[in-house]
Amino acid sequence: MVEFELIEELKSLQKYDSRVNLGIGDDCAILPQRAGFETLVTTDLLLDGVHFRTEVHSLKMIARKSLAVNVSDIAAMAGTPTAAFISLVFPKIWNAQRARQLFQELVHAAQEFQIPIAGGDTNTWSNPLAVNVLIYGEVEQGQAILRSGAQPGDRICVSGPLGGSIFGRQFTFTPRISEAKWLRKNARVTSMIDLSDGLISDLGHILEESSVGAEIFAEKIPISEDVGQSVDGISPLDHALSDGEDFELLWTMSPAELEKVLNLQSCPVNIIPVGIITETLGCLLVDEQGHKSPCSLQGFVHKFHEDS
Amino acid sequence: MVEFELIEELKSLQKYDSRVNLGIGDDCAILPQRAGFETLVTTDLLLDGVHFRTEVHSLKMIARKSLAVNVSDIAAMAGTPTAAFISLVFPKIWNAQRARQLFQELVHAAQEFQIPIAGGDTNTWSNPLAVNVLIYGEVEQGQAILRSGAQPGDRICVSGPLGGSIFGRQFTFTPRISEAKWLRKNARVTSMIDLSDGLISDLGHILEESSVGAEIFAEKIPISEDVGQSVDGISPLDHALSDGEDFELLWTMSPAELEKVLNLQSCPVNIIPVGIITETLGCLLVDEQGHKSPCSLQGFVHKFHEDS
Repeated sequence: MVEFELIEELKSLQKYDSRVNLGIGDDCAILPQRAGFETLVTTDLLLDGVHFRTEVHSLKMIARKSLAVNVSDIAAMAGTPTAAFISLVFPKIWNAQRARQLFQELVHAAQEFQIPIAGGDTNTWSNPLAVNVLIYGEVEQGQAILRSGAQPGDRICVSGPLGGSIFGRQFTFTPRISEAKWLRKNARVTSMIDLSDGLISDLGHILEESSVGAEIFAEKIPISEDVGQSVDGISPLDHALSDGEDFELLWTMSPAELEKVLNLQSCPVNIIPVGIITETLGCLLVDEQGHKSPCSLQGFVHKFHEDS
Repeated sequence: MVEFELIEELKSLQKYDSRVNLGIGDDCAILPQRAGFETLVTTDLLLDGVHFRTEVHSLKMIARKSLAVNVSDIAAMAGTPTAAFISLVFPKIWNAQRARQLFQELVHAAQEFQIPIAGGDTNTWSNPLAVNVLIYGEVEQGQAILRSGAQPGDRICVSGPLGGSIFGRQFTFTPRISEAKWLRKNARVTSMIDLSDGLISDLGHILEESSVGAEIFAEKIPISEDVGQSVDGISPLDHALSDGEDFELLWTMSPAELEKVLNLQSCPVNIIPVGIITETLGCLLVDEQGHKSPCSLQGFVHKFHEDS
């Protein structure tokens, strides 16, 4: 019965606007449809021991990350998030106070991202916490930026330093909603993705979907200062290329478009060119001497995606 | 890596039509928006040991139920399901063959309900299976049937026999999509819900949202023959009033509208009047002698919603 009370509480905390016609409390939520717009939908299931650890991370961190990783997927299409749906299963050993705190932290996180919680589901079981978040968003008709549009000659850019997110940034990152929308409005972006699995891995999705290859320039890769905390013998460059959960944007655009936006004084996006799209399939890493070697995923350390 | 292969396999099995502009394989799915329509969204998280038991129920049963309970929520609003999003977490002890089989059974179930799978998420962990399904649907603008419209004097109807779903029907029921749409098109239905928690409990939601009361007539309650398999000492009537997971529709309409549809020879809906909406709040059960007693939830047995 505590669950019903918590849902009532959650419902009372939501102030719906024109983005939600009917929110929590009926068999379905009702959301508006508008001519000239398309819907974006993304979902991630976050699990104790896999994406977070309840014995280490606060409920605030867990709640925020659960929302933020999904918001980042909306950013990767250059859309606007408009509603969240959250399914929870609490461990039975949790008391009502702890369950209430997670609800409240989810509400806070949704408020930070200015997204109403429009529905969900709540259960308890004798196993660890699981949080499924689905974010619903919108984009002007035909304006979503896909993974599939990269062209040979396009420059490959990222929106910030990479690597070492495990030391905290994986919980504190800002989904690049405004940056993606600015890019879409001010330039012709040919493809885009958010960096959840690491630069090499996520670039691989763009290459595959676009049927192209790439050359990445080692000295151009922005290495986060967080990488310095690492003592695992993996090089800083490998960390930047392979660590997951940076949640920066990776995108492609023609050299002329890149030149154009780099020259705009008002550009609010940190635009860091790191490589070039090639007709030849595959991904090559080019070192400072110009030597080319196949991009490797051997440095891949995605610790919170493996339950060990 | 097996997960990536399974997702590729799932993607290759989906044939998208005009309901899905972009399906599995990018950061978000893209769905169309149409002027004159609204979106319906519902989600349920189904858990091993709570909503099903992997040691007892087949993957086919589990997959179908996971879809069907959500489709039933779309029916309860008189909408049409148009896309499914499925988040899975497999136990690590499952082999690839078993994971593949669950994927295939989810595809089959989605095909049965004629809904494309447009996206989702897959993980593994050292705990039991969890399946989150979100169904996206649509309804003509302003035509969704809510819980909040019941009026004093309205008749309360259900669409089929109730109770004992635990003996199998909870896995084999047909979500009442076509019945709900027929009712919406052929009559003024004032409120509707699907019977997931049991008649008394779900009628309670309508009474609360509509700020009305009800009288239920004991001799009118259709008792499923499945109840006969029960040997727990609870009366057949209590089973029909309180067992969950019947997934029949419960709705209200004026006596004139009820008369009208009952007289239509072509009516495809099993319309069973069971009570009347009252101005006086609360729910009363009226026995054959006309004695009234408060509806009680004491018979409530919702076995697969409790992890014992």
